[in-house]
Amino acid sequence: MTSKQPTERIRKSPEQVRAAVHQAVLDLLAAPDGAEPTIPAIAQRAGVNHTSIYRRWGSREALLADVVTTRLERSSPLVDTGSLRGDLTAWAQASVDSIRTSEGRVLIRAVALSMPSTADTQAERAEHFMRRMRSIESIRERAVARGEDPPSLEDILDQLIAPFYVRVIFGIDPPAAGYPELLVSRLLGAPTALDAGTTPGAA
Amino acid sequence: MTSKQPTERIRKSPEQVRAAVHQAVLDLLAAPDGAEPTIPAIAQRAGVNHTSIYRRWGSREALLADVVTTRLERSSPLVDTGSLRGDLTAWAQASVDSIRTSEGRVLIRAVALSMPSTADTQAERAEHFMRRMRSIESIRERAVARGEDPPSLEDILDQLIAPFYVRVIFGIDPPAAGYPELLVSRLLGAPTALDAGTTPGAA
Repeated sequence: MTSKQPTERIRKSPEQVRAAVHQAVLDLLAAPDGAEPTIPAIAQRAGVNHTSIYRRWGSREALLADVVTTRLERSSPLVDTGSLRGDLTAWAQASVDSIRTSEGRVLIRAVALSMPSTADTQAERAEHFMRRMRSIESIRERAVARGEDPPSLEDILDQLIAPFYVRVIFGIDPPAAGYPELLVSRLLGAPTALDAGTTPGAA
Repeated sequence: MTSKQPTERIRKSPEQVRAAVHQAVLDLLAAPDGAEPTIPAIAQRAGVNHTSIYRRWGSREALLADVVTTRLERSSPLVDTGSLRGDLTAWAQASVDSIRTSEGRVLIRAVALSMPSTADTQAERAEHFMRRMRSIESIRERAVARGEDPPSLEDILDQLIAPFYVRVIFGIDPPAAGYPELLVSRLLGAPTALDAGTTPGAA
């Protein structure tokens, strides 16, 4: 690389850089003006060189995507409820809880800001999508292992994930009660007697 | 106001300013780097003072929302097909056609970028949402006038509008055929014999 002054007084470990940069992105996204954070602004707030950010993430979009997927994975521990219906309902309940918080709305906003621009390749978009869908994909895999027949990723995207995005975009709160069960029933059909006992909140 | 040099050589009419500013927003959003356009950049490209933009629209978010709703209203002439199912299917078909074009994806991106930041009031969000829903609302009103019982705006948002947003966000193309009919059937139930003859594409 080119010669560069050591502006980082105390050399940070890669994990420290990552944590500081992630926190800077979340802080900037949560600022009242809601501006789209630039890499120089993120670097300044995190106390790292902006070249470190470009080297590690390549682009702002990739960085935002990394922040979002990391936070979403941390905030949604995927408990095995014992059934596809239970797992999807728990996922939707976690999403309802998340978008009721300021940080949750910021994360959704970050996904939208990191969405593919016209310059992205199809492969980059597909990778972004699959990272976002990882938690849903493991719910599907558990269902297959149980002998259940889960809906396709695209159907889950359209019917279970999409509503959370548009509600954040337009600032429309989800219904106060029963929303996770409503979304899952649209996807899987109404619960039957067989579902009782394995579905949280189906009482 | 403060004294200001007349940088606009030829004074534009309000409608000319509006058209030039709208076109500048669309051009900047369609640029390969996909950056979020700033008001100074929009003003420069449109050849108007940025104070004119602030005076007329108040904020970048309000400007983006105006561009989006204007273009969407122009691109979706709401033909009365004679039934709620037909009208919603035609709306969904127009949306499929739209997101297959670069300009259509740019418009969805603009909606996401103009989405409420934490600084917006609930009233601003609600107005933004209602402007976006105006074409759907007139479909609902026609249905009520015919004696049909249309779904709520929230159900239409979740099941018919939301999928288009997430598909643009994640770059997932809609299915090649039958997607408008699929979305409308999820919303209204499968078509019956009574629907034949009034539903485009139901053959």
